[in-house]
Amino acid sequence: MDAGAEPDAEIESGGGTWRFPAGKPLRLDSGATLPNLEVAYKTYGRLNETRTNAILVCHALTGDQHAASVNPATGRPGWWDNVIGAGLPLDPGRYFIIATNVVGGCMGSTGPASTNPKTGHPYALSFPVITIADMVRAQAMLIEALGIETLLAVVGGSMGGMQVLQWAADYPEKLFSAVCIAAAPRHSAQNIAFHEVGRQAIMADPDWRGGAYEAAGVRPEKGLAVARMAAHITYLSEPALQRKFGRELQRDGLSWGFDADFQVESYLRHQGASFVDRFDANSYLYITRALDYFDLAAQRGGTLAEAFATARGVRFCVLSFSSDWLYPTAESRDIVRALNAAGCRASFAEIETDKGHDAFFLDEPQLDRTLRGFFASTAQARGL
Amino acid sequence: MDAGAEPDAEIESGGGTWRFPAGKPLRLDSGATLPNLEVAYKTYGRLNETRTNAILVCHALTGDQHAASVNPATGRPGWWDNVIGAGLPLDPGRYFIIATNVVGGCMGSTGPASTNPKTGHPYALSFPVITIADMVRAQAMLIEALGIETLLAVVGGSMGGMQVLQWAADYPEKLFSAVCIAAAPRHSAQNIAFHEVGRQAIMADPDWRGGAYEAAGVRPEKGLAVARMAAHITYLSEPALQRKFGRELQRDGLSWGFDADFQVESYLRHQGASFVDRFDANSYLYITRALDYFDLAAQRGGTLAEAFATARGVRFCVLSFSSDWLYPTAESRDIVRALNAAGCRASFAEIETDKGHDAFFLDEPQLDRTLRGFFASTAQARGL
Repeated sequence: MDAGAEPDAEIESGGGTWRFPAGKPLRLDSGATLPNLEVAYKTYGRLNETRTNAILVCHALTGDQHAASVNPATGRPGWWDNVIGAGLPLDPGRYFIIATNVVGGCMGSTGPASTNPKTGHPYALSFPVITIADMVRAQAMLIEALGIETLLAVVGGSMGGMQVLQWAADYPEKLFSAVCIAAAPRHSAQNIAFHEVGRQAIMADPDWRGGAYEAAGVRPEKGLAVARMAAHITYLSEPALQRKFGRELQRDGLSWGFDADFQVESYLRHQGASFVDRFDANSYLYITRALDYFDLAAQRGGTLAEAFATARGVRFCVLSFSSDWLYPTAESRDIVRALNAAGCRASFAEIETDKGHDAFFLDEPQLDRTLRGFFASTAQARGL
Repeated sequence: MDAGAEPDAEIESGGGTWRFPAGKPLRLDSGATLPNLEVAYKTYGRLNETRTNAILVCHALTGDQHAASVNPATGRPGWWDNVIGAGLPLDPGRYFIIATNVVGGCMGSTGPASTNPKTGHPYALSFPVITIADMVRAQAMLIEALGIETLLAVVGGSMGGMQVLQWAADYPEKLFSAVCIAAAPRHSAQNIAFHEVGRQAIMADPDWRGGAYEAAGVRPEKGLAVARMAAHITYLSEPALQRKFGRELQRDGLSWGFDADFQVESYLRHQGASFVDRFDANSYLYITRALDYFDLAAQRGGTLAEAFATARGVRFCVLSFSSDWLYPTAESRDIVRALNAAGCRASFAEIETDKGHDAFFLDEPQLDRTLRGFFASTAQARGL
């Protein structure tokens, strides 16, 4: 499909896998290129005649393109079905909503589990290290191929929010608005530290096999589960854990052993065990690395405002959660300060909730109201 | 050695290993008993004639009896040599300072690596689950055997602070004062969650062998290192990590791979690697379990103040650190509120520092001043 071509049948039918044109590899920040790139995507709603109602939804670390429809890997609802749906802030009756699986992912887009065309075997660790900007570059090529010149909005939470910021830095001319939720302009030392724990847990698993587990017919499930457990704690606030679990026991009385005595242990174990069924360990390594490498200011000589210097035409909305300690509100304020310094139009809200980072997935009335209001006014400004 | 006996030569010489009298096992909260219990301890200074200058120092999760002298396992200074020493708040020229290795530990006290007298093999997972109260019960027996009726003070940070609280609850008549630093009256859901990640990391290591690694001649080093890395993050504040490491690189430029690119990664890997040289994986399981089981109020019908009902004669000092997110100041305030409700005499200070939980190990002028003042007035009140 060429730039400017008509949307094809796949889009009408709600998504598929888009393959980069032959001879057009994805150029990566590392200097490497990825040939035969495939981007898995889902769409909800229909592109209008003026092609002005398209919204790109960007996913977080372990998310995917199944934002608002049943995930075939888990049989569970899409990860943002609180936000995308009839009568919700992103209504497919009004907008053409696109969600992709990031490059490096494991739900259909090219990633370390994909076949390396040079060897005929899975890439594993021969997959090049990718960045948030690489993910966004692939998305931009897909959007162009879909015949969309300007996105009404790009929106995402957590790593999705970082993609939003990267979109604004690299393709401001393709954006009418940008909504960055629970994100940060760079990964902090603590963020990197938690990711490094997860990577070391995976690499410590003998079934990781230096990354070549697929060829060996094994999977580093225990290591990946530990990585997920450690990360999951950072997605929840301490008060939310206390409210949800406190010191409640699984059974009457203590086991006086190492079974899961406390409900919070059992919950975490379940988070780890269910994660390995749906996620690839090498993808986890590559995507956490992309996050750790993310530093928008460093890309522009150390000044964050420089990243937004050409984004004055974009309407920004920046949202944070009061109990998010992974990407605390102070990080969102840094973004807003830089947007202001760059002369960009930005609205900002810190949403009061005790649910922590993962609040952007959850039923949060204030988030719902804020997104509803922002998208309504954006659509109106766009003449929809 | 019997209760009331003269201090023996070992004490004069600065410590040793005290073995419970034959036929006198340690009774544990679980209902089990530990025969042939050994408690490794160090002493600094000399017990005065009236036996009124003894101070018991309690260690944190991975600490030991080497509080103020070179640790033979690491060749490094004692873990509290900022606080114990000539001219320091705990001056061995004035006080007789005792530090023990907790039951379940791996530096000489009976723990899971000790020989099970019933089998002649290491206990491993046949070691009974122990509690903070069990640790304290063993200490109380040692103190009694040393001929000390009343401690001038019991003092400790983190898990050491929990031992202090347990001392006040169980042996208030043996205490003149109690200093609880950076601790909590119970382990929160988040505390338990982090410990569970560490335990799962250890148990996921195939070299753990269901706990029987010693018999197999292996050690779960990778799992234990991951456990330490995850825990270590919780000991530092986010601002301290940012100040110390930020996004500083190990080398010029990124590796575009999974080497330690960032200094914080290298630091964490070092923390993990050096920890496995000095600590036993099963001890880590047992001591984290003891912490998770700790809930002082639950021991007394759910009312924390009840734990201190008989401690009105004890002078309390409760200290927290403003940037400690493992056992935040709010937890120390809960302790102080309960002490007040019980009619106990308690002074409280939140020490302003950005260094996080581990600040109690570090050179903190306000901590130094506070401890100095408290111990000086306590000694004066005791007529020293």
